[in-house]
Amino acid sequence: ESYGELNADKSNAILITHYFTGTSHGAGKYAASDATSGYWDSIIGPYKAIDTNKFFVVSMDSLANLNVKDKNVITTGPASINPATGDPYGLTFPVITMRDMVNTQKSLLESLGIQKLYAVAGPSMGSMQAIEWATAYPDRVERLISVIGSSFSDAWTTAALDQWAIPIKLDQYWQQGNYYKSQPPTEGLTAALLFITQIALTPDYVNRIGVDIKHQPLEANPLMDIQARHGINDWLYNRAKERAENMDANSLLYLVRACQLFMAGQKNDLRTGLKQMTAKSLFLPATTDLLLMPYNARNTYKELKEMNKDTKIAEIQGHLGHLEGVLNIHKHSATIAAFLAE
Amino acid sequence: ESYGELNADKSNAILITHYFTGTSHGAGKYAASDATSGYWDSIIGPYKAIDTNKFFVVSMDSLANLNVKDKNVITTGPASINPATGDPYGLTFPVITMRDMVNTQKSLLESLGIQKLYAVAGPSMGSMQAIEWATAYPDRVERLISVIGSSFSDAWTTAALDQWAIPIKLDQYWQQGNYYKSQPPTEGLTAALLFITQIALTPDYVNRIGVDIKHQPLEANPLMDIQARHGINDWLYNRAKERAENMDANSLLYLVRACQLFMAGQKNDLRTGLKQMTAKSLFLPATTDLLLMPYNARNTYKELKEMNKDTKIAEIQGHLGHLEGVLNIHKHSATIAAFLAE
Repeated sequence: ESYGELNADKSNAILITHYFTGTSHGAGKYAASDATSGYWDSIIGPYKAIDTNKFFVVSMDSLANLNVKDKNVITTGPASINPATGDPYGLTFPVITMRDMVNTQKSLLESLGIQKLYAVAGPSMGSMQAIEWATAYPDRVERLISVIGSSFSDAWTTAALDQWAIPIKLDQYWQQGNYYKSQPPTEGLTAALLFITQIALTPDYVNRIGVDIKHQPLEANPLMDIQARHGINDWLYNRAKERAENMDANSLLYLVRACQLFMAGQKNDLRTGLKQMTAKSLFLPATTDLLLMPYNARNTYKELKEMNKDTKIAEIQGHLGHLEGVLNIHKHSATIAAFLAE
Repeated sequence: ESYGELNADKSNAILITHYFTGTSHGAGKYAASDATSGYWDSIIGPYKAIDTNKFFVVSMDSLANLNVKDKNVITTGPASINPATGDPYGLTFPVITMRDMVNTQKSLLESLGIQKLYAVAGPSMGSMQAIEWATAYPDRVERLISVIGSSFSDAWTTAALDQWAIPIKLDQYWQQGNYYKSQPPTEGLTAALLFITQIALTPDYVNRIGVDIKHQPLEANPLMDIQARHGINDWLYNRAKERAENMDANSLLYLVRACQLFMAGQKNDLRTGLKQMTAKSLFLPATTDLLLMPYNARNTYKELKEMNKDTKIAEIQGHLGHLEGVLNIHKHSATIAAFLAE
């Protein structure tokens, strides 16, 4: 997906790297009848923070993208056909890292003749890719915007991510990833997506939903039947189940692993990776984030400051938690526009 | 389990109500060779905050206690034999509430001739039982100590609790709860316990474990094999698997449900329940708690204050999160001793 025009010396390209459950659909609509716009539509477009009158904005679907059944998604992962066998790779697909994702993006950009990015920007897993760009290929990145992100997977995050893989592997239909010719592990995938939704939100926000759906602890059905669910859990389940329809369970395992393996620049420690960076950087953690808590960005900012790198940080306030960085990124439109103008 | 002596007018009894994965083993050791003491040993004993020279301290295993294979645990739940069939109840066991747990405790106390509690105190799910005591039977409770607790399950908590039930129900060996004559759903139960451990801790604490076990995002095995786990996830898995050995998966589902159904006094709204309370109360949330976050206790304290009830709050500081209320409760020994002396 791209917006704006690449200029003559190909110096105005901004790469947008998407989040875990997302796709390259960052802005606009593909059809007037689409229910929603791309996820960062509030900051990508003419006269917006990432001004498509000035910049050539480009985004591509990640390797092992979850949304394999979305007709607009182009990806390679465990659900892709292995030409050697004619069957989906399943777990024979190699483990991938953020570097692999970055390298596919680099190939695309090179095919367009782009040798250097004016900026790379992304939320969450997209932030990991953006940081990997700036640390792996420092001479190709002038500016980095890391939103609700992290520069490596610490022990906490590595464990938290595993919680998304576990229900898929427990689902009897998963069958060590060999489900492409039979029933897929839809319940396991639904559980994973439900877990992701909750941790990407906050008590404050979920309790507002609770008010809307008139949440009552002593609800009649769950009081009478151990197998019945409270309304709030039906709400979360039904949304997750619907999202699961376009997605592939094995791909989720591969994205979990790519995030777990993330260390900026693929070095043995963070400092060595960050030292490579020459890009100016802007970090935008969300204060109420429970998934990639703001300590991640604060610590990285502090490390970079100590190295006398050109870096800035601003926090996104609000009750949406992690999702502030996706749905409410426009709260920092001015911060982003000013950073890009530097 | 009991400590100390019941006095002549039976006015010095303190009931201790245990947490979700716990038992009545609140203090001391059963044998000198025991690896650990009861969970609140740091505050229960002679000259401790809950001074067994003064008080008769009593605790009992909850209904549907998880630890059905612990030889010291006496409980009734889905793993118990239904005398009508000679088989375990499984899911034919009725849904239970905090009130049911309180009522079994009330029967025990009445059998000892105790009509009124000097105090009731408990952490986490134990706090729910303690609050249920004070709101359901106000004339039987003089003092309430709610540690890392909540006075009702809001939408957030109801959803968070469901994450513990989901992996059990996904395990193919669960079989709608009919696993007592075959292989139990050990992997699902292990996953549930692993989720509980992580949410009861904090990034700070888990990252210290990460340092101890030399956590590296780019660990060799998970980099080469999608099915391999990072060291931190092995660490969490192995501990959970070991704990699962004494536990029953269906019982976990019943405890999840009892917590989800909790509303102080089983009223339609919190205020109506709390209005019933005549006990003096002390709330001890943990500031870094990610499971029952401190807003729960703060809001209940505020409600009680607005009703001009005699109530106090103090926060447990530290990096252990929810577990501060179990492992580090002695940080508030003086607070508890002073409250009991009032």
